[in-house]
Amino acid sequence: MNRAATIEDVAREAGVSRQTVSNVLNAPDVVRAQTRERVQAAIDLLGYSPHVAARRLRTRRSSTIGVHLDPYAGGISGVVLDRFVHALTERAGERGLRVALYAARTPEEEIRRMADLRDGAEVDAIVITGTFAGDPRTRWLLDHRVPFVSFGRPWGEDDYAEPAHLWVDVDGAAGTEQATRHAVASAGPRVGFLGWPEGSGTGDDRETGWRRSLPRGADAVRLVAPESVATAREVVADALAHHDLDALVCASDSLAVGAHLAAVTSGRTDLEVIGFDNTPAAEALGLSSVEQRPEDVASGALDLLMGAGSVIAPRAAEPGGAHVLVEPRLVVR
Amino acid sequence: MNRAATIEDVAREAGVSRQTVSNVLNAPDVVRAQTRERVQAAIDLLGYSPHVAARRLRTRRSSTIGVHLDPYAGGISGVVLDRFVHALTERAGERGLRVALYAARTPEEEIRRMADLRDGAEVDAIVITGTFAGDPRTRWLLDHRVPFVSFGRPWGEDDYAEPAHLWVDVDGAAGTEQATRHAVASAGPRVGFLGWPEGSGTGDDRETGWRRSLPRGADAVRLVAPESVATAREVVADALAHHDLDALVCASDSLAVGAHLAAVTSGRTDLEVIGFDNTPAAEALGLSSVEQRPEDVASGALDLLMGAGSVIAPRAAEPGGAHVLVEPRLVVR
Repeated sequence: MNRAATIEDVAREAGVSRQTVSNVLNAPDVVRAQTRERVQAAIDLLGYSPHVAARRLRTRRSSTIGVHLDPYAGGISGVVLDRFVHALTERAGERGLRVALYAARTPEEEIRRMADLRDGAEVDAIVITGTFAGDPRTRWLLDHRVPFVSFGRPWGEDDYAEPAHLWVDVDGAAGTEQATRHAVASAGPRVGFLGWPEGSGTGDDRETGWRRSLPRGADAVRLVAPESVATAREVVADALAHHDLDALVCASDSLAVGAHLAAVTSGRTDLEVIGFDNTPAAEALGLSSVEQRPEDVASGALDLLMGAGSVIAPRAAEPGGAHVLVEPRLVVR
Repeated sequence: MNRAATIEDVAREAGVSRQTVSNVLNAPDVVRAQTRERVQAAIDLLGYSPHVAARRLRTRRSSTIGVHLDPYAGGISGVVLDRFVHALTERAGERGLRVALYAARTPEEEIRRMADLRDGAEVDAIVITGTFAGDPRTRWLLDHRVPFVSFGRPWGEDDYAEPAHLWVDVDGAAGTEQATRHAVASAGPRVGFLGWPEGSGTGDDRETGWRRSLPRGADAVRLVAPESVATAREVVADALAHHDLDALVCASDSLAVGAHLAAVTSGRTDLEVIGFDNTPAAEALGLSSVEQRPEDVASGALDLLMGAGSVIAPRAAEPGGAHVLVEPRLVVR
């Protein structure tokens, strides 16, 4: 049969009325055992399943995870979040779940969208991304007992020992540590860092890994640029005129592309530049880069929400939480 | 009120029983007019709306559009489809619709996923992407009368005059025509084309625009490489040794990045290289590129499905169709 079996198909197959099939499904006690068995055999034969919306109404379960999707912002590193959404869709599909996307341009609008989804029992859980200190979304989700996990730590004081909610994140410091050790071994001890202006939790985390793995006595040359290829290029071109550098570990591939262009223009093709995010741009230019493993982040998010089971675990709606920290890996080119 | 109003809230506000509210909603004739008005006033005051799953069960409408999301394939041009998904989510949200993602690795698996969604009344319509000649998905969707639109033309004989189904696509030939005219004006008449091996409808379409806008008498130098930066680089490096070229129009940004790297290595920094897709990689390297306008593609898809209304139009489930062809634009750098 090409189309899904209907209740009428079952009735015809079993030689009973539509009402009798409905009774078997909803009030089996009123149906004679023999008839019940005949209807059940027809249901099994035809693979009939009651309408999903009806089942959803009974179980209040939608088998759907809501994910906010930002407007496309362009830029080199935007692909990381998209890779995460791809991976989440695949991994969720393997567990019998779907992913519903919703758009919102501000945290406040995102909260309104989440409230809509909750009110309509449209999703069983929500995945938020791009967390920041004092994030109003996590407060709202906790207050309303909506099961959720964040891609991004809470950026509070006790994220590890006593996390405020479930979260999964990438260990940025471990990534830049790998990058710095590699740069020291392959290019030399004078490894600088090109990061974003202070105040970004993600950026500060990535700087930490560089700082703690610098060789003893090495100058800690720290350069700063916003997430812009052109500005990074200017900053690095200027720095190369004033500092002796063997390598530059960067907080993102956008910064790394700018640094690479500055190195080429300054005749410093020997400068080892390492990026972060392992984007197609880094690959195209042959730059080494730290890979975030979005596929592992997606698996971690689902493990936190579901445990080993196939439904959202109760703790996903409770205050307090657990976390998964994904170890990134350096892709050497 | 922070949470959504429930049927109990309405009953309390109106001073009636829960059953009476339910009667007003489902069997208003059995309720006295005066009571009905009081309940309706409470419903309006509290902004109560019946459970979405219940409404869905009545209307068989989910206000959701299903979109298949490929596994992340990497590469420079993968971002175009992601931009389309971003734009579709936003535009759909403005029309009160959500986007549901599903994963599948083959057309056959995608058909099974679509069948699941249809059987469960989980989506009102489906958007398929990456159509090809003899695509089994369009056949299945037509046979089962599932409302759908494709991003990508049917690649049949009468796609324009008598399209087999609703489709939206980008006019690739118009894009390479713009690119070729620009290259002739800014670099010179000897404009080559770097495309994929034959047999790709998209690639052949893009080649057409270059071929028809070449200056009369100019040599039509056509180079071929698969979608690979490294191979494109080798092919162009070899070609530059044998042909006099002022510019190279490319079928993708991946090919353009390879061509650009070959030009730089061969000391031909004057060679004008133009890409297709306007990806972050082209932006980072300062290459001109044809922009597909995924936002316009998303709007076109929704216009075809919904017309000017807010529900899926009946024709979206009928054989025969209409199309929207989006004019791309050259971004000059």
